[in-house]
This record gives sequence, structure tokens and C-alpha cells, in this order.
Amino acid sequence: MNDVNDTNDDAVQAIRDLVAERVRAVKAKDPEPLAHQQADDIITFDVLPPLRSHGVDAVAEKTQAWFDGYDGDIDYDVRELAVTAAGDLGFCSFVYHVGGTLVSGDAVDMWVRATLCCRRIDGTWRIVHDHESVPFDPETGQAQLGLQPE
Amino acid sequence: MNDVNDTNDDAVQAIRDLVAERVRAVKAKDPEPLAHQQADDIITFDVLPPLRSHGVDAVAEKTQAWFDGYDGDIDYDVRELAVTAAGDLGFCSFVYHVGGTLVSGDAVDMWVRATLCCRRIDGTWRIVHDHESVPFDPETGQAQLGLQPE
Repeated sequence: MNDVNDTNDDAVQAIRDLVAERVRAVKAKDPEPLAHQQADDIITFDVLPPLRSHGVDAVAEKTQAWFDGYDGDIDYDVRELAVTAAGDLGFCSFVYHVGGTLVSGDAVDMWVRATLCCRRIDGTWRIVHDHESVPFDPETGQAQLGLQPE
Repeated sequence: MNDVNDTNDDAVQAIRDLVAERVRAVKAKDPEPLAHQQADDIITFDVLPPLRSHGVDAVAEKTQAWFDGYDGDIDYDVRELAVTAAGDLGFCSFVYHVGGTLVSGDAVDMWVRATLCCRRIDGTWRIVHDHESVPFDPETGQAQLGLQPE
């Protein structure tokens, strides 16, 4: 699928920039730009528990733990970015591949779905809601980490 | 957490109505109102595989299979609905409890996170992106179906 860009060009570009900055920050293992993107009262549905968390502080802790869990670089590639935005609201969906080696020695190689819901607050685009997940197999209850977009 | 209502009242109410209609439709096991809410080119990240699907036809099949999988009523309760909307765009997040008895005899009793991204198209609010999931335990790889909001 090609990328989708919809409605207002400036707002769409702002969301695309936000995703691009996110990719750079993860690859650099730099939590600062990620925290800066988040609204103070962000609602997060993460790949890992808990069910949901609230607020930028809760996310910062998890981001640092995520980065610390990797021995070396994190591979983070975004595909199928679809953006809809206009005025001061926008949202996007994409799938991303995350790869690398954990400090435990285990390899990570998985595709994750992501949805970012954004709002321009005092002139700056912020993520007010972040939902990331993988589906699970209802027969085994196992999260499906091996699903690929192609 | 209390419900959140943000920005434009009419648009927010439209999204709230859409969620309320969704609850009624699931409890009635009526796929029609659900299909009507969806944009033709909806992007769906579902609780179960595949990784993602595109288009209203793909969703309709899964909805019918979901309803057919239950012996009797489906319990579907929405909590922590947070809505942000203005103009012709809006999004919301919530957690929902789904319960009932499958035709296999197995009981279902789980909490799911949901994000709906919406757009007013030709005067009617439609879901252009639907993301629903549960987190998984990184130690066991098991989807966490027992997590509760309280």
C-alpha cells in the first residue's frame, strides 16, 4: 500500500515530521524528542502491560526501560504510514519493524501496529493518544510477533 | 478516570453517539450499524490476526464471524471514553469489557483497548481507522486477557 495523505497539507506534513522525528529518536536511543512530542496527559495503550497508562511521566519511564533493554542499536522502520489531519487535529497509523539484540542476548525481530492521535497545543503538535500492539492467536493465546506486512 | 470531552461540542457528541451505537449493535449482534459506521477504505488493526486489514468488506466478514462465535449474548461495556474532535475530524480511545460464552463452551471475560479515528465524509461521521488490542507479557509471549482497568 502506498502512503496516504489526506485533507490539509500543512497539518499532514506536521504529523509526517513527527513520525520522522520519532524514527530518528528511537534509532539514536534518545528519549528527549519522544517525551517532547507527548501531551502532558497522554493516554497510552502500549504493546506491553499495563492495560493503559496516563501522563508523560509514565511513558518516559517505559521509553528508558525499552532503550536500556537493548544491547546496541534498535532497528526501527516505519511502513504504510497513513495520515489524516486538518486544522489542529490529526491522526496516523502505520506498522513498524523493530529489531536488535536485547541485553539478555535474545534477538528481537517483530512487526508492530501503531496509531498516534495528535493535537496542536499552543502551536506545537503533541501526541495525546498512542496505541501500539500486536494481534494474538485465539487458539494459543500467544502474541503474534512474526506477522509481516508483505 | 472521568470521561474526557475536548474541543468542539457537536463533533465530540457525534463521536460519542457513534460509540453508543456501536455498543447497542454489538449487544444486539447486528452487523449493519457497525458496517455503516466504517469508511470504505478503513484501516483495521484488530485484536486477532492479520497484522492489519483494509476496507469495509474485510471487517464485515470478521464481525459476522465474531458474532457467530458466541452462544447467546455478547456483553460489551465501554469505560474511560476519551474523545477529541473538531470540525470534520475526531478520535477517541476507550477500554471495553467483552464477555459471554463461545459456541465451544469456553467463557470470554476480557478487557480490550480501542482507538477509533473518525472523519465526517459527505456529512456522515465514519471510522477511517480502528485499532483494538490487548498487551502481551514479554516473558511468556502470552496475550494478557485478565488485565482490568481498576
